[in-house]
Amino acid sequence: MKTALPLALTIALGAVSVPAMAQFQKPEDAVKYRKSALTVMANHFSRIGAMANGRAPFDAKVAADSAAIVETMSRLPWEGFVAGSDKGETAALPVVWTEPAKFKEAQEKLQAATTQLAAAAKTGNLDSVKTAFGATAQSCKACHDAFRK
Amino acid sequence: MKTALPLALTIALGAVSVPAMAQFQKPEDAVKYRKSALTVMANHFSRIGAMANGRAPFDAKVAADSAAIVETMSRLPWEGFVAGSDKGETAALPVVWTEPAKFKEAQEKLQAATTQLAAAAKTGNLDSVKTAFGATAQSCKACHDAFRK
Repeated sequence: MKTALPLALTIALGAVSVPAMAQFQKPEDAVKYRKSALTVMANHFSRIGAMANGRAPFDAKVAADSAAIVETMSRLPWEGFVAGSDKGETAALPVVWTEPAKFKEAQEKLQAATTQLAAAAKTGNLDSVKTAFGATAQSCKACHDAFRK
Repeated sequence: MKTALPLALTIALGAVSVPAMAQFQKPEDAVKYRKSALTVMANHFSRIGAMANGRAPFDAKVAADSAAIVETMSRLPWEGFVAGSDKGETAALPVVWTEPAKFKEAQEKLQAATTQLAAAAKTGNLDSVKTAFGATAQSCKACHDAFRK
């Protein structure tokens, strides 16, 4: 176990960034933030999906732009799962807070998948995009199955 | 005036990307998307603001990360202002749709400001961040004053 410095002292020493909770005035703000990041991610992911599944013509530039946005977004929502934000307008299951290591692992899998997706989209090769899209979609689904109502 | 090809033909020829409206099944989806992008942008902009205004200790890495997110987000909301999305849960004024050139100009000013902000944050110099933060905030305000209830 690490020894925890008192928070005010830690900040005064410049040893850490402002803690996540400070980004959100109220738990509802954290819920709104994480949902917003997930909404932007889902929208751009679905644009790539439309191309991967042949519902839209493949446009390498559009795919690369959307994949870069998906990769950026995949890092954001998680700090919004602050203590106390398990109530209200959320579909998050209690396991998010009771099994943080498992939740963190799911986040890291997603981030690895979106990094692959962004790299695949940069190549401009549709088959690579299809493969990486499928892997990312599985990562989305696994996390939703485990952590979302 | 440009001559418009029929949409289906234009897509078939691969001359354009899938049009913006295709990204949104319903006008409400477009509203949700643009609000989400603005929420993520506002959250990260306020983190920089806290540092620029001395309410939080300056952390160059946090500022640079947030400024990069702000820059990315500043490009996204605008395609969500599709025709028919002026109703419901939105504070957008009719002038968004009646004066598109003016609205576009405001978007471009914001994007120029966030690019400056991201560049300033990368330098790690707090005074540069303060200046760029102020310019970006003015751009936010000018657009809100003109286009938002």
